[in-house]
Amino acid sequence: MAAKLTSRQEDYSKWYNELVVQADLAQHSDVKGCMIIKPYGYAIWEKMQSQLDKMFKETGHQNAYFPIFIPKSYMSKEAAHVEGFAKECAVVTHYRLKTAEDGSVVVDPDAKLEEELIIRPTSETIIWNTYRGWIQSYRDLPILINQWANVVRWEMRTRLFLRTAEFLWQEGHTAHATKEEAIAETKQMLDVYAEFAEKFMAMPVIKGTKTASERFAGADDTLCIEALMQDGKALQAGTSHFLGQNFAKAFDVKFTGKDGSIEHVWASSWGVSTRLMGALIMTHSDDQGLKLPPALAPIHVAIVPIYKGEEQLASIKERMDPLIAELKAAGLTVKFDDDDTKKPGWKFAEYELKGVPVRLAVGNRDLANNQIEIARRDTGEKRSISMDGACAEIQSVLDQIQDNLFNKAIEFRKESSRKVDSYDQFKVEIEKGGFLFAHWDGTPETEEKIKNDTKATIRCVPFDSDDEKGTCMVTGKPSAGRVVFARAY
Amino acid sequence: MAAKLTSRQEDYSKWYNELVVQADLAQHSDVKGCMIIKPYGYAIWEKMQSQLDKMFKETGHQNAYFPIFIPKSYMSKEAAHVEGFAKECAVVTHYRLKTAEDGSVVVDPDAKLEEELIIRPTSETIIWNTYRGWIQSYRDLPILINQWANVVRWEMRTRLFLRTAEFLWQEGHTAHATKEEAIAETKQMLDVYAEFAEKFMAMPVIKGTKTASERFAGADDTLCIEALMQDGKALQAGTSHFLGQNFAKAFDVKFTGKDGSIEHVWASSWGVSTRLMGALIMTHSDDQGLKLPPALAPIHVAIVPIYKGEEQLASIKERMDPLIAELKAAGLTVKFDDDDTKKPGWKFAEYELKGVPVRLAVGNRDLANNQIEIARRDTGEKRSISMDGACAEIQSVLDQIQDNLFNKAIEFRKESSRKVDSYDQFKVEIEKGGFLFAHWDGTPETEEKIKNDTKATIRCVPFDSDDEKGTCMVTGKPSAGRVVFARAY
Repeated sequence: MAAKLTSRQEDYSKWYNELVVQADLAQHSDVKGCMIIKPYGYAIWEKMQSQLDKMFKETGHQNAYFPIFIPKSYMSKEAAHVEGFAKECAVVTHYRLKTAEDGSVVVDPDAKLEEELIIRPTSETIIWNTYRGWIQSYRDLPILINQWANVVRWEMRTRLFLRTAEFLWQEGHTAHATKEEAIAETKQMLDVYAEFAEKFMAMPVIKGTKTASERFAGADDTLCIEALMQDGKALQAGTSHFLGQNFAKAFDVKFTGKDGSIEHVWASSWGVSTRLMGALIMTHSDDQGLKLPPALAPIHVAIVPIYKGEEQLASIKERMDPLIAELKAAGLTVKFDDDDTKKPGWKFAEYELKGVPVRLAVGNRDLANNQIEIARRDTGEKRSISMDGACAEIQSVLDQIQDNLFNKAIEFRKESSRKVDSYDQFKVEIEKGGFLFAHWDGTPETEEKIKNDTKATIRCVPFDSDDEKGTCMVTGKPSAGRVVFARAY
Repeated sequence: MAAKLTSRQEDYSKWYNELVVQADLAQHSDVKGCMIIKPYGYAIWEKMQSQLDKMFKETGHQNAYFPIFIPKSYMSKEAAHVEGFAKECAVVTHYRLKTAEDGSVVVDPDAKLEEELIIRPTSETIIWNTYRGWIQSYRDLPILINQWANVVRWEMRTRLFLRTAEFLWQEGHTAHATKEEAIAETKQMLDVYAEFAEKFMAMPVIKGTKTASERFAGADDTLCIEALMQDGKALQAGTSHFLGQNFAKAFDVKFTGKDGSIEHVWASSWGVSTRLMGALIMTHSDDQGLKLPPALAPIHVAIVPIYKGEEQLASIKERMDPLIAELKAAGLTVKFDDDDTKKPGWKFAEYELKGVPVRLAVGNRDLANNQIEIARRDTGEKRSISMDGACAEIQSVLDQIQDNLFNKAIEFRKESSRKVDSYDQFKVEIEKGGFLFAHWDGTPETEEKIKNDTKATIRCVPFDSDDEKGTCMVTGKPSAGRVVFARAY
């Protein structure tokens, strides 16, 4: 196991970086900005994928796969989109290497592409170019497709999971006959994301609409879920975009309606990425390591036998086997750790670091008393429970942990959220972190000024607002309702 | 639905291309050599992935993810590897576009990478560069990792699924303390592939070893599974490589053994790709369309109601609902097709084209007789069965279809395999297709001559051979046993 973590209080950012590496979640690669997702981190991502995929399919979506390469010219077809995405991207210009006279390997100048290819930063362009061939009439609609893929956005300042040049994500791309249907889809998928964040990640989120300046490049509207990290900074955890007819117009995708009229198709797109791993880590973990919600934990229960000699180990194992079988039959992943090169104390620390929700310890005396020690990762609480009915008790504790993590995060967000009514007060409060609910006059100029003055951005115009009218804290102009400000990842 | 397919006899290659597109499996994209995998095709690939992933995990492997970019210099570190892979690959040279004076989008010459990045054609180099940091002692071994990813190998002549510039695959990369262990892993994973091919794809395969000239670039030994397509051409369906210490040496990956000695690590790598989709299609399908083995079919049972008016449809639906629920509870995917814009005949043809294993048709008269019509896609057989016990009967038919597809493919391979003893006879026989078992003197020169003369390659030196010694059909020199020749995809 690795060295003790820097504490969150001492240096939150350092704590995060150390935790990601020491808990074996991910590491930087030698390729600038690209990460390696290690098996333990990938196992959590697989759990996320599997649950999200299930929810996408339950809402009628199918998976498909589109090319990683986007011809340069596609990027320019939607004016706003190219501004947002074409700038920092990986460009393929050649398709062959050759051995030079000195024996080194060089790019073959004869193998230059006629048109450069961009590694997809997002796939709207190539997908809408394809949908043109798929859609003729209203009978071809809706198209409800999702893609699991890697994407690349060249980033100079990267952080594991939070901001990397290459990352993994899913991107939904849907096509509809009406504006209303496309908007309903956009909202439905935001709800799916919010449900996933709250029920599975145990991470409360605020649902809302992005301001025009924070909108996806090419969207008419961007909906988002915003979470609050333990350092008081916000993190955008998922977005769902109503694309209007922008991409349909850019790629000439029309359909014949029931009445014979010809119209452009309406669209949505929506995505979440490996960034959720960063959100998960920063929502729950502490100075001892990760805290994983049981719904996404690769190991639910770690069992550490306390023994001397093979014989004691064998008798512990024999007594635990029925319980292990019972836990597995209940769908839980259990690790019985009989590695004799490591001491129990080392193992306890390791499972704490890895965020395993429940740890059992069992020694000879426990066996004699027909009991085991159960430790909760979320509260640190330890107690002895009877071997009889232990499976049901452990399942109940796991449920409690899932709930407790969510409730603690809700509590923290509540403490860190407040209404602010003057700009002076805002400037003081923003230093303390958290969500600030304040009035804003609705103009990009004021938004920009606040950002420049305080580094705070409008995270969203929340759906759930008390609809309280007021006046902008900066300009005194009328405001339709409070919006959510925070400094953000 | 699309037009009638070209028959296999008329033009096998055309039949294949039409089938892939008309059955909605995949299509060419506008990006040269890259395919779009459509939802129905992707659903089959997901079934393959899910089963393979399960088998990998059951044999102790974990998934992880490594960067898509490989620094150019990594490619040159293993001499044989660079020869094999560095030549036809996508090269990223820049990381930014900019808007030119005329408003067009161009590559920004100021954003040139110091070192070009290659899109991974396979990941040995970046993974072994990483393993150097993961492995110090024997306690860190073995490392048993798999990655699901997209890879790019620039191809000029592409065919959907069989040969595309970008394709999806999995690549296992393992590290071991001993040569024996690495070899055992290499064999184990070939067995996993063979079991998957035979039990799930219903595709018989020959297991064997590649000759030196057909070996993976950087391997000491390449094991493979070879399947026979209906046109008599062979298809390499999966490979598992014993890499010796080649990559460990190229990337300086050493470990301290139990005895304190320091040695290079031993390695294996193994992969299968979306090429399996092509193999699946060409093993079973016919002039009416796909034939999918139930183990990989996205839809197991399609139910076509034969009715006039809403009332009849409702009564059919009501009677079928319990059966549908029963089938679903048995883990089957069922589609009740009540689309009233299409006629039953059209639907029958559509499900044939899509390879759905079992089709049920049910009309008013059937209801009166308490029966349904069941049609098997593999044999075309139609008969009436009682509604009572229909679920069990359908499950049994699905099992029969899975077996029958495999047995038919075994039968075809048997008919298409023969021993050949003279080179003249070989030249005649190779024109008829199939596997030819012949003696070869073991030299690359003779292998090359046969390839140049006949376009036939040695598919493998089979594990199961009758160990019959003989003399090379070309040179008359001694041969240790027959090897398998074929023309191949």
